[in-house]
Amino acid sequence: MADDMGRLASLRCVMADEKLDGWIVPHADEFQNEMLPPAAERLAWLTGFTGSAGIAVVLSGGRAAVFTDSRYTIQVRRQTDESVYETFNVPDSSPLEWAAGVLKNGGTIGYDPRLVTIAQLEAWQKKASENDLVLRPVMDNLIDRIWEDRPAEPATPVTPFPLETAGWRAAEKLEMIRHDLAARDLFGFVLTMPDSVAWLLNVRAQDVPHTPLPLSRLIIRADRLTWFIDPARVPEDLRRALAQETGIEILPPDRLSGAVTALGEDAAEAGKSIGLDYSTATDWVRMHIESGKGRIADVKDPCAAPRARKTSAELEGMRRAHVMDALALVRFLFWLERAGKAELASLSEFDLGERLLAFRTEAGGERFRGPSFDTIAGYNENGAVVHYRAEEKTAARIVLPGVLLLDSGGQYDCGTTDITRTIPLGEPSRIAEMFPDFPECYTRVLMGHIALAMARFPDGTRGVQLDAFARRPLWDAGLDYMHGTGHGVGCHLSVHEQAAHISPRGNAPLEAGMVISNEPGYYRENAFGIRTESLVAVRRDERYDASLSFETLTLVPIRTDCLMAELMTARQIAWLNAYHARVRETLAPCLAQEPDLLAWLEAACQPVVNL
Amino acid sequence: MADDMGRLASLRCVMADEKLDGWIVPHADEFQNEMLPPAAERLAWLTGFTGSAGIAVVLSGGRAAVFTDSRYTIQVRRQTDESVYETFNVPDSSPLEWAAGVLKNGGTIGYDPRLVTIAQLEAWQKKASENDLVLRPVMDNLIDRIWEDRPAEPATPVTPFPLETAGWRAAEKLEMIRHDLAARDLFGFVLTMPDSVAWLLNVRAQDVPHTPLPLSRLIIRADRLTWFIDPARVPEDLRRALAQETGIEILPPDRLSGAVTALGEDAAEAGKSIGLDYSTATDWVRMHIESGKGRIADVKDPCAAPRARKTSAELEGMRRAHVMDALALVRFLFWLERAGKAELASLSEFDLGERLLAFRTEAGGERFRGPSFDTIAGYNENGAVVHYRAEEKTAARIVLPGVLLLDSGGQYDCGTTDITRTIPLGEPSRIAEMFPDFPECYTRVLMGHIALAMARFPDGTRGVQLDAFARRPLWDAGLDYMHGTGHGVGCHLSVHEQAAHISPRGNAPLEAGMVISNEPGYYRENAFGIRTESLVAVRRDERYDASLSFETLTLVPIRTDCLMAELMTARQIAWLNAYHARVRETLAPCLAQEPDLLAWLEAACQPVVNL
Repeated sequence: MADDMGRLASLRCVMADEKLDGWIVPHADEFQNEMLPPAAERLAWLTGFTGSAGIAVVLSGGRAAVFTDSRYTIQVRRQTDESVYETFNVPDSSPLEWAAGVLKNGGTIGYDPRLVTIAQLEAWQKKASENDLVLRPVMDNLIDRIWEDRPAEPATPVTPFPLETAGWRAAEKLEMIRHDLAARDLFGFVLTMPDSVAWLLNVRAQDVPHTPLPLSRLIIRADRLTWFIDPARVPEDLRRALAQETGIEILPPDRLSGAVTALGEDAAEAGKSIGLDYSTATDWVRMHIESGKGRIADVKDPCAAPRARKTSAELEGMRRAHVMDALALVRFLFWLERAGKAELASLSEFDLGERLLAFRTEAGGERFRGPSFDTIAGYNENGAVVHYRAEEKTAARIVLPGVLLLDSGGQYDCGTTDITRTIPLGEPSRIAEMFPDFPECYTRVLMGHIALAMARFPDGTRGVQLDAFARRPLWDAGLDYMHGTGHGVGCHLSVHEQAAHISPRGNAPLEAGMVISNEPGYYRENAFGIRTESLVAVRRDERYDASLSFETLTLVPIRTDCLMAELMTARQIAWLNAYHARVRETLAPCLAQEPDLLAWLEAACQPVVNL
Repeated sequence: MADDMGRLASLRCVMADEKLDGWIVPHADEFQNEMLPPAAERLAWLTGFTGSAGIAVVLSGGRAAVFTDSRYTIQVRRQTDESVYETFNVPDSSPLEWAAGVLKNGGTIGYDPRLVTIAQLEAWQKKASENDLVLRPVMDNLIDRIWEDRPAEPATPVTPFPLETAGWRAAEKLEMIRHDLAARDLFGFVLTMPDSVAWLLNVRAQDVPHTPLPLSRLIIRADRLTWFIDPARVPEDLRRALAQETGIEILPPDRLSGAVTALGEDAAEAGKSIGLDYSTATDWVRMHIESGKGRIADVKDPCAAPRARKTSAELEGMRRAHVMDALALVRFLFWLERAGKAELASLSEFDLGERLLAFRTEAGGERFRGPSFDTIAGYNENGAVVHYRAEEKTAARIVLPGVLLLDSGGQYDCGTTDITRTIPLGEPSRIAEMFPDFPECYTRVLMGHIALAMARFPDGTRGVQLDAFARRPLWDAGLDYMHGTGHGVGCHLSVHEQAAHISPRGNAPLEAGMVISNEPGYYRENAFGIRTESLVAVRRDERYDASLSFETLTLVPIRTDCLMAELMTARQIAWLNAYHARVRETLAPCLAQEPDLLAWLEAACQPVVNL
């Protein structure tokens, strides 16, 4: 547990210096990363809470609170000192309303404008003005003033993402983006999302876990391209190549504020606006543009949509990554099936994740760059907790029989994977005794997965129109799952991309080249979780004009021994059998030296017969 | 053809009096009706064009144009004098841009604020200001000044819609609406849609074709309810009953302007806003509220959502209406099948509509109040024209073989119907020769119809999520249809209600009690059209918590002799057979005296066997 009182007392001292009644500590960094670098773990440093979503409010008068969502209700209580921090669930309680309730007569709440997006701040400001609070930006974070051994900002070496994998030169992407900006009559754009910068410049680094990003920003103008990153991180030959191709100028990050202000001034002089994506750009950027008197237009990140449409080269890389990933998975599944009852009972969910990592490292060799997210290995009732993360000390043991939900992914130098398989462990008859509904629920999830995988649809179809294909077999039995069916996936970039979505809120049309997950599930509280997830690529369907369909990229057998095939249609069974035939054909040649494993693969890929 | 030059010359004279450079003549009335009463047919009177959507712009300098959509491209040329009117398709050309192009140096265009909704006017104003035009409202329509024998405003007798069919008293509905207005802190609401007024007060009349409406408006305040309609139209006992129940005051329509202005003044004094639905309320109403200094809030018509959820009594009435309608349809289909080749060849699409009307009149007796819309009887290539209306003089003859698309509906005193069946006529082998794809297309449309009819889905599901269930079998073959899958239907009210929708833009959740059409189709240009439409009611699905499903209300056999049953799933065939069993069980007792017809029904309802 953190030294809460000492740190809190120091924070209240600096709050007093600034005449603040409150201070906001969000779980966020300057780049709106999903995973924070250690230097940005201010919330954890102050409160002890390490979850991926949360916000603390510290008031001068002695009270403080941490707000999380329902995923973290238990964890936040365990990790924070309850004599110091009150804890709340976010939909039930809002940080600013809580602060206003405590302060009674209003007050001034400070925040770091580098850590809040413009859209978030607008919501905060609405709440503040409804509750007689004033929000005041403080340009240097109060936590940073008192956090003495704060880790350094990440600064890993930048490497090129090769053209043969990217398929599209930085100069070509830049031309397209500039064309887009000109069509909107924008003077320039401040590209604040590191994955957009990495995609546009064809570069990668290792600044944060799971996603190979250099944390950096770019200013795009018609006449100039400026990249804000420590120049020492960019190898000389990469720097030269990029400069030759795009005329890029590289400046250290501390030059960003001046450059943004200058951009604002130049745009004002030209009578044009500067584009900024309010959903991802921070208040800090806006303040600096406005201090240059620049007008701002809220425009979606212009890289998001083209990044979602993978090039042929990227798709080729994704396919290669999926073969490596499948080899790791089948070795893992083979090992898991062979492991004795006693061996499994000595292992925990956490250990399974470690073992899987070892198989991926072996299968991918140098090309494997680490997991694309923290593995979710949820055994029995833990599988029903949608965002479950097994922790080394508290993870459940694999005591048979049971159902393992295993959701994991890898970063390979040519692509990113994300796969979930649901694996019954132990005697089928004993699983059926323990969970009589499991076979039907498992079958319905798979029917939804297949119904989506088989879909053919016209150009312009949006994700929301397809989402229910995956739910229908569950709906037929009064069941459902409370998450989207599919999210976009980057190519050796973020495993969660926003532009493509198959969900009740998926309003963007699906376009050829998009890579999306297909992951229906079903969760029986306190019993088991089921999810069957493969990645699919949207492709032109050659049989018909203006038609699209999906290519399933993931190549890992799906358990069929627990299926109720009689629920499935003949076409669904035919799809499943064709899928397994493709898995076997693709993987078997790589396993020719391992007869036992090959035999296992043959058995796992046996066609299902509906009698 | 109308006496265009004389009328146009007169119009230009009054335009000159008003110093206008242009005058807009939309196809619209004060109530935004789909079908206009004769007094509002100003566009037809001036230009000769009688289509259901269009707008004319007359310029002082000698040019004039009529703008329609692609449905009317041919009709508008045929009906208007091309030496006088230029004609344009709306997405290609916009009336105000055209006017600006002709006028070159800007100008003032007059419009009647009673005929344009606030939302439409906002769009017009945007176009006007982009094109240096000024829009000026003129309070008395220029056409009315010169149209000497303009028909009287409709004034049919108002009749009560009985409580046993409505299921909910006017006082109860009013209380609910007032509660809704209070929750939004509104001072009052001007209810401008006649179908909302008819629903709220449980009254009907015959002011317009097809929809049993009294054209009238209502002002709802917390302390007062005022209905603007000629009091002489409301029978004494109805007036007394309504007054007793709701305290309603009835004033003649010419008192509306003063009352709306007074409402504005009272609301301003109370410091509250007045609700108005910008998508249906006209600029005229807004002007009068604003002349009373009232503030206006754009709020959806508060009757639209509750009207969409039919009461049990309304659903019972809809079911009764569907039995009468089915008896008319089966008699018609029986007659059609028995009619000889020569008899059919002497008939046109128009005649079939007339014949069907006769069967409905016979089956419904006094309870039948007329068609719920103009019958669409499209034979062969005419069936592929989605908004086809056969006209007496130009309708195609029924020369065998061929495919008839027949879309029609009835108004009964207890409900409204809307049904489409696709009927191959002649030797199946000759139809197959003529249209080799017809059986597969027909089967896929029916598969979509059944897939939607069988859907079960959780509370909160929106129409857009289900729409693709009906399209999927067509998508599988690279086919689609360019209209929504389902629209809401009123109970002895409008056959098109807006609140419920199953379409790519259907964003409202489906709720128990909604009645919606299920009408996938397929249209092969210059060949044939297919549509299979029944009405469905959303009902609670008792088997599961928080689940909904559909009850198909329409009870008319669907042709099965042209099916490719091998494309269908076993569940789809089971649904079709169960549907036909229900049709037979429901209708057979009513046909006991007619052995030939009964035998025909038995044959039409034979189960399909998939070998």
